[in-house]
Amino acid sequence: MQQLENLLERIIRRLNINLRGFDFDSGLFLRGCVPLPQLFKFYAFYAVTTRHPIHFHFSNSNLAGSYFLGKCKVDNAILYKSDIRGDELKSKGDAFQHRSSNLTLDQDELIWITDSFLIKTLVHNNSHDPENPEIYHIKNSAACHYANIHGAPIEGSFLGAFATVDLTALHGCVVGPYAYLQVGELWHQKVEEGRIWINQYNSFDFRYTFPEETLKRYVCLEPGKPPRGIFMDFIDDRKKDFRKVFDVVNMEPTISIPQTSSVSRYGVIKPETQVGENVLIAQRAYIENSVLGKGANAQENCFIINSWLQGNNVTAHGAKLIDAQLSENVFVGFNSFIRGLPESALTVGKGTIIMPHTIIDLNEPLSIPAEQLVWGYISNPEELKLQSIPLKQLEITTSPLKIGDMEFRGSGARFVATFQNRINHILEANGAYFDGAKNRGHAQNGQNVSYNIIQAYPIGPQQGIFPTIDIQP
Amino acid sequence: MQQLENLLERIIRRLNINLRGFDFDSGLFLRGCVPLPQLFKFYAFYAVTTRHPIHFHFSNSNLAGSYFLGKCKVDNAILYKSDIRGDELKSKGDAFQHRSSNLTLDQDELIWITDSFLIKTLVHNNSHDPENPEIYHIKNSAACHYANIHGAPIEGSFLGAFATVDLTALHGCVVGPYAYLQVGELWHQKVEEGRIWINQYNSFDFRYTFPEETLKRYVCLEPGKPPRGIFMDFIDDRKKDFRKVFDVVNMEPTISIPQTSSVSRYGVIKPETQVGENVLIAQRAYIENSVLGKGANAQENCFIINSWLQGNNVTAHGAKLIDAQLSENVFVGFNSFIRGLPESALTVGKGTIIMPHTIIDLNEPLSIPAEQLVWGYISNPEELKLQSIPLKQLEITTSPLKIGDMEFRGSGARFVATFQNRINHILEANGAYFDGAKNRGHAQNGQNVSYNIIQAYPIGPQQGIFPTIDIQP
Repeated sequence: MQQLENLLERIIRRLNINLRGFDFDSGLFLRGCVPLPQLFKFYAFYAVTTRHPIHFHFSNSNLAGSYFLGKCKVDNAILYKSDIRGDELKSKGDAFQHRSSNLTLDQDELIWITDSFLIKTLVHNNSHDPENPEIYHIKNSAACHYANIHGAPIEGSFLGAFATVDLTALHGCVVGPYAYLQVGELWHQKVEEGRIWINQYNSFDFRYTFPEETLKRYVCLEPGKPPRGIFMDFIDDRKKDFRKVFDVVNMEPTISIPQTSSVSRYGVIKPETQVGENVLIAQRAYIENSVLGKGANAQENCFIINSWLQGNNVTAHGAKLIDAQLSENVFVGFNSFIRGLPESALTVGKGTIIMPHTIIDLNEPLSIPAEQLVWGYISNPEELKLQSIPLKQLEITTSPLKIGDMEFRGSGARFVATFQNRINHILEANGAYFDGAKNRGHAQNGQNVSYNIIQAYPIGPQQGIFPTIDIQP
Repeated sequence: MQQLENLLERIIRRLNINLRGFDFDSGLFLRGCVPLPQLFKFYAFYAVTTRHPIHFHFSNSNLAGSYFLGKCKVDNAILYKSDIRGDELKSKGDAFQHRSSNLTLDQDELIWITDSFLIKTLVHNNSHDPENPEIYHIKNSAACHYANIHGAPIEGSFLGAFATVDLTALHGCVVGPYAYLQVGELWHQKVEEGRIWINQYNSFDFRYTFPEETLKRYVCLEPGKPPRGIFMDFIDDRKKDFRKVFDVVNMEPTISIPQTSSVSRYGVIKPETQVGENVLIAQRAYIENSVLGKGANAQENCFIINSWLQGNNVTAHGAKLIDAQLSENVFVGFNSFIRGLPESALTVGKGTIIMPHTIIDLNEPLSIPAEQLVWGYISNPEELKLQSIPLKQLEITTSPLKIGDMEFRGSGARFVATFQNRINHILEANGAYFDGAKNRGHAQNGQNVSYNIIQAYPIGPQQGIFPTIDIQP
């Protein structure tokens, strides 16, 4: 596995050069955090459908356990159990609007990952970067366990475990564990762990940081080891259920699924689960003893256990729901951890937005009203008061606002509208509004996928490296 | 599946033009003989190892259930559950001797299949064709269920079910079911069903034809249907055992295998099977309640049931052994069907050669002595007398010989030496003689293979067509 070891060192070297201003050694975190033999244990797979233009090209890379959809090129990279989703790639000739500029793509959009190490990372394109409309590039970068890279390119950057970079192009940044960024673009900054920061140019700014000691219980990172804490323990406890779905080539569905819904054959569906119309359950989602009402969607790496979702619910990438009852149109953002009490489920009223990276882990029964914005760490009704605001109240805010540790500036109305438009886009793209003819989305188009399985060289100096492969229509 | 239908018609048209001299319509046999929906039901798989140079290129083709090893290009072809083995491909610079000529390869050898339809066909390269040392080409051709194409290219030719073309380049030929050809080269001939013909230029000629009525019980072909008869019934009865091995991505071995042996994870191994040193069990081999002694090899599509093989036994592609006890160095050729009685196993003495396409299906107990050549159809000791000859006696034959329906001309010594050298080559190539250091072969090198799985477009006009794919080191 000499070539694989060389590849890892090459990536560390290139990333460190980008981060030399911080004197940051990514090798401390990347070496040993996934033992190398794990990297040739798993196959990689890519989806072939008639609805997504495909072009895959993989060279000098390890892709163990990773999943690809759409157009994607990977060179000199290690993608360990990562999901690389290109189902909203733009096409040649498509218009791309940024503020007042209109751009036209001169070739089909492509995801291109070079000299990078992504660990269990979700990459979703729908790129909003106006500088590189044709190439969604992840370069000289590393992302640790369960990070999300969403809708913007990154270069020369390091993301800690469970960090999310959302609609934010990163250049030479270090992002701490469980930090969430949605700020458009960021140059050479260190973002502390548990920092939640949403900024829209000339419109609004939202900031919150988790208390350090609280966060450590949920996610804690030490050099050379996988992350520890409640998040990892929770995931590890359910690991074995995934083994079967990845071991079998053709899985038969275990529950009945309406024709307008789709359940990935790489998801885990345990008894007693019910799935309504227009539901999308992505690969690596885990659903147990839950009801997913019409138009609900369960994204990659999410867990929904002993819960009831009434409809049009988004459970975003990496979100976890346990013992919860969500009314219609409740949104749960990236990597949130929402756990009610077994004897008293958390209830959440209609239209409430649970922000990305929110931890609700109850010690006492709690009911969250309708139409709220909720963030931060909440374990009881008292804490809810300091980590939530009614959307109606936020909508009329124009002056700076401080609630608990949260600081908000700018236009509350634009903040709420931006969030709601985006939730609406997600529901629409996922097919929640399909009426049998119009508004098809991933739930309808995600059926009829064929999965293709590729493996690395099993022994020798190339052990763990995948052959060069090129797949076109 | 419009494109797949077009592809089938294109192949039929091209093949028929090659065979227009015979007024032969291959469409009568190819249409409907595999229902089109079967053609997108299965994945294809290719092996990646460090010991075989790989380059795969597949375009506008259906590859359902097929297996590839080595360098292989497939364009405009349908390969249904076929095995395309390139594990003895020659390399650039290798010398190639034909009679007194010496050729040097100016590029690596490649298997290239174009405009052809192969059904459950075994293609094995080790090409002996001096005209095309670099490209082992199968073009404008079709081969029906369980045909073997071995060691020479074919163009514009049709092979019936269970036919074998061995070290014979075919140009515009029709080969009937269960015919076996080993004649170097053949131009525009029709070969009748059940014809066994071995000819070596200036050396020897062996001919035998199965009685028509007897053969029909074993294999019978009607236009537009899969073949019928004892061969197909026997295989179909064991089909379900293969389902599991093709359904699971990573199979654990079910029996203990010596370190010097290899058992394909795409073979079926049923209780109580024992495997000795230096044994090779290929993909799609089926072994049940049998002992495979040191150096035995069980090739693709063979079945070994309730049998005991003492060592260095070759059970060639498609051969079937039931209730048989084979002494050391017994060879059983392609597609032979050897069935003893459950209460009285067929015994075969040391060094006996059972010719390719031999049917031994006992009504009475039988013991075949050592060092014989055996061919034709045998059900009792009387019939053995007319379908066998001691090797020692054949070795001293120089004048024409007729035994039963078999006619032999030329040098018996060269015939026996050629056969024995070839058996020796097979044992050597398969690793039977490995001593822990020298004489590695497929049994030792076949370990540590990673299998890669590719699938066709699942719906739409391209349904059943595989994306264009290119795989290189």
